[in-house]
Amino acid sequence: MELRARVLIDCEDNKGLVYKISKVFYDRDLNIENNREFVDKEHGRFFMRTVVTGDFDSNELKEALKEVIPSLANLQFIEPKRKKIVILATKESHALGDILIRHEAGELDADIEAVIANHDTLEGLVKRFDIPFFKVSADGLSREEHEVEVMKIIDQYQFDYIVLAKYMRILTPIFVSTYSKKIINIHHSFLPAFIGANPYKQAHKRGVKIIGATAHFVTDDLDEGPIIAQEVIPVNHRLEWRDMQRAGRDVEKIVLSRALSLVLNDRVFVHGNKTIIF
Amino acid sequence: MELRARVLIDCEDNKGLVYKISKVFYDRDLNIENNREFVDKEHGRFFMRTVVTGDFDSNELKEALKEVIPSLANLQFIEPKRKKIVILATKESHALGDILIRHEAGELDADIEAVIANHDTLEGLVKRFDIPFFKVSADGLSREEHEVEVMKIIDQYQFDYIVLAKYMRILTPIFVSTYSKKIINIHHSFLPAFIGANPYKQAHKRGVKIIGATAHFVTDDLDEGPIIAQEVIPVNHRLEWRDMQRAGRDVEKIVLSRALSLVLNDRVFVHGNKTIIF
Amino acid sequence: MELRARVLIDCEDNKGLVYKISKVFYDRDLNIENNREFVDKEHGRFFMRTVVTGDFDSNELKEALKEVIPSLANLQFIEPKRKKIVILATKESHALGDILIRHEAGELDADIEAVIANHDTLEGLVKRFDIPFFKVSADGLSREEHEVEVMKIIDQYQFDYIVLAKYMRILTPIFVSTYSKKIINIHHSFLPAFIGANPYKQAHKRGVKIIGATAHFVTDDLDEGPIIAQEVIPVNHRLEWRDMQRAGRDVEKIVLSRALSLVLNDRVFVHGNKTIIF
Amino acid sequence: MELRARVLIDCEDNKGLVYKISKVFYDRDLNIENNREFVDKEHGRFFMRTVVTGDFDSNELKEALKEVIPSLANLQFIEPKRKKIVILATKESHALGDILIRHEAGELDADIEAVIANHDTLEGLVKRFDIPFFKVSADGLSREEHEVEVMKIIDQYQFDYIVLAKYMRILTPIFVSTYSKKIINIHHSFLPAFIGANPYKQAHKRGVKIIGATAHFVTDDLDEGPIIAQEVIPVNHRLEWRDMQRAGRDVEKIVLSRALSLVLNDRVFVHGNKTIIF
Repeated sequence: MELRARVLIDCEDNKGLVYKISKVFYDRDLNIENNREFVDKEHGRFFMRTVVTGDFDSNELKEALKEVIPSLANLQFIEPKRKKIVILATKESHALGDILIRHEAGELDADIEAVIANHDTLEGLVKRFDIPFFKVSADGLSREEHEVEVMKIIDQYQFDYIVLAKYMRILTPIFVSTYSKKIINIHHSFLPAFIGANPYKQAHKRGVKIIGATAHFVTDDLDEGPIIAQEVIPVNHRLEWRDMQRAGRDVEKIVLSRALSLVLNDRVFVHGNKTIIF
Repeated sequence: MELRARVLIDCEDNKGLVYKISKVFYDRDLNIENNREFVDKEHGRFFMRTVVTGDFDSNELKEALKEVIPSLANLQFIEPKRKKIVILATKESHALGDILIRHEAGELDADIEAVIANHDTLEGLVKRFDIPFFKVSADGLSREEHEVEVMKIIDQYQFDYIVLAKYMRILTPIFVSTYSKKIINIHHSFLPAFIGANPYKQAHKRGVKIIGATAHFVTDDLDEGPIIAQEVIPVNHRLEWRDMQRAGRDVEKIVLSRALSLVLNDRVFVHGNKTIIF
Repeated sequence: MELRARVLIDCEDNKGLVYKISKVFYDRDLNIENNREFVDKEHGRFFMRTVVTGDFDSNELKEALKEVIPSLANLQFIEPKRKKIVILATKESHALGDILIRHEAGELDADIEAVIANHDTLEGLVKRFDIPFFKVSADGLSREEHEVEVMKIIDQYQFDYIVLAKYMRILTPIFVSTYSKKIINIHHSFLPAFIGANPYKQAHKRGVKIIGATAHFVTDDLDEGPIIAQEVIPVNHRLEWRDMQRAGRDVEKIVLSRALSLVLNDRVFVHGNKTIIF
Repeated sequence: MELRARVLIDCEDNKGLVYKISKVFYDRDLNIENNREFVDKEHGRFFMRTVVTGDFDSNELKEALKEVIPSLANLQFIEPKRKKIVILATKESHALGDILIRHEAGELDADIEAVIANHDTLEGLVKRFDIPFFKVSADGLSREEHEVEVMKIIDQYQFDYIVLAKYMRILTPIFVSTYSKKIINIHHSFLPAFIGANPYKQAHKRGVKIIGATAHFVTDDLDEGPIIAQEVIPVNHRLEWRDMQRAGRDVEKIVLSRALSLVLNDRVFVHGNKTIIF
């Protein structure tokens, strides 16, 4: 029977790793559909992503791989299974809408389990697509109290990633660590420029000639997580900050969707505060 | 006799400015070769750049313009005259070389009066083009002492702008204020990201997916002056910081030359910490 | 009473046009919110777009302008009124979906009157947004017969523009001339490269390192109409043509929406086969 | 003794190639400094570029590799040796100048043996760099006769590549086949748009919003050879064709130098009319 798996290996670099790993596949007569590798020489780290097909026993194959790679290696053996996401949003519809349209067209590589927002502005849009929408108002709640309510809903779902589609609230370390390495955010500047609130106002004030957007994994350090994708567009003195905001939306949604596609296809390794993307 | 002038006006916005200014030109039967205007509504500021040709008396025309614009207006009346620049550099040749090649091809819109560097690395290159080269070593000198030596040479020349073509030294407030609004620098990052030393190392460490360069006027605040031009290129995890530096050179030299061309053609207004570019 | 109008003038260039036109506004004490002009020297043609506000009588103002501009000038005097569009599509949802999401967010500057498609693939999506959807199958019909059916529906609506959001059928000269200067198309290549069928296959075969998309007005010459907007993205040897198609969709939808926004805001002049965009 | 070689393999795809090739390296205890591979599934073709270091016997290693790859494979075994180029130019200095500056800075990865031009415009520039310059006027000569004269000079030199740095003459099939796969050209448009004479005039006439440049290997079909690199810049209605030409020069020189760097570092495979670039 023809099976398929994505094999991701992230380990200390050693002489012969490509040989040893490819031998495991060759000995089992597997086809390599796609193969990328990279050695980070600065940190002596080896990264490999291989898509194999053929007639294999998953457990046996995993064990065979573990024998040839260093003992502390990260081995991900990912068999075909549709992923699931939960989306957090606030009021703006462009990033969420882009994901909804891709989902509807069957191009998202994931199911959207639910959309949670701290306002009800987007309820109409989400319901048009028959996707569960939850409003969790932050009014009168502390940051922690609000997050507890949000997490109650999140935890009703099985999911692989939480996507912050212009969710305009700062997350607490508790939230971030609860869903460690699972939260993807779109920040509306080409980080590390304009960290913090209202990057478009900051960009306008600074008089930059380029604005951009950054999709990144969320870590405890605000706007400091590993960057997945970035894109920019030119601007000029004619744009007031609201014009920049409007122009920036196109970049934001494209960058978030591109990053999401990379992550959903298991093309992104995180190492320290950086990403390796195949 | 057919004359030509670039008229630049920067003043408080008022109703009818375009009408009143164009009336001055119309009444004298002048041709408008090119005309751009912009109103900064946030600051109530009017900017206009007009290229006029025809038979005019410069003083009479200037006086007529002064009568219709606000009393505190900045009026620049620029008649055709080849500009002059002095270049400061250190060891890298790409930005300087780009300017030298344009100069040689007659495409620079300026004469290069001299190149001053704190090392002799570039002496050979500059002398190939029969341009005066001065090495002013900073060895054993304080920042101020070194600048005094540099300024002695600069002040031997008449010039319109000082171009920092990868001059890797921080300027003192005295130097900056002496040549206020006349110093153009190329910074090797898309400012305001990676202010300060070695932006490529910083960019590599941060794991950005885009690097860039910024040409700006130099003010007292390091890397904070009005931005003239910016450009970026994509990078990925395969590039070590030296690879980024190498790739970035192409962006640096193009951005500096583009900014220089804008400035030499009197297309750049500076207002506060921002530029208006026609 | 404060009124507002967009004044677009396109005429033979003459000395003093800016003066004469701005005098008309000044004499009536109108505010100029925004003003752009351009002279095409090759064709001796003058273009101006001014947004004026104030207390004016539209007819009187129009007549006053007509008196100062050449007799054959095109004068458009556009008062605030929400525009209407009809969309033609086929099976792909990305370009249509992008417009629907903007419409829903109130960012489109137009109402969508109807969507007409030659397949029913998009019916579900369109109906989610409570917008009339019409399937007009081309099965068994000649090109002319099919268009007659499409035009029957189109003509039920009042509209300013027809938007071809990846409508994969070639239009006849009759259709094009019926809606002359009102049809906006998105072509999936950076024209004039890869005119005709399946540009992505052509691009893949040619081995280009850049692909793109072009929004243009439709004229009788297939893919030859005036270009409104273009954008590109880098590609490499790893992309098969279907990957290029997928990557290209993001460019297509952004370029179409950007062009649409320019047209709906009356920022686009068409002169001969080219556009002037303010 | 530590040796180094670039191993390039281009052959029919077969199961186990990565395993077999990496086994050859592993068995000889070699370090893999860098490794990239790609399978063109459409044509069933395998491409691999590996940089190996260690203590090896070149002939023995080559023989060992030949035993594990298909008999018709292209195997290039490239040991460190500075490459040589001959440059052909006409009158424009920007592309040539960019190469000269890189050469002077030691960043070209090649020696420039000679510059040959059909005019003497560039003689002064080239001689500034102490590089042999030859003017071969085409006046009164047929295309073939002129090329015979050019080839007489070319053939005095040993070289790896001929670089056409804005050489504005069409080459005959004889010239092209004599230096097959060795000629790199920069074309001043984003091919396949605007094949043939004066692409900037064509681009201006067509009213495109983007212009570009393409570096490619030269084949018998004019402007149809395998593309190595492309880049574009935005333009608008304000640019006359000479402005486009001026703006385009920056793109041309950067694209040519980037392509040259890829070729000189043996990063470019040509397969059919396309390139695979690692």
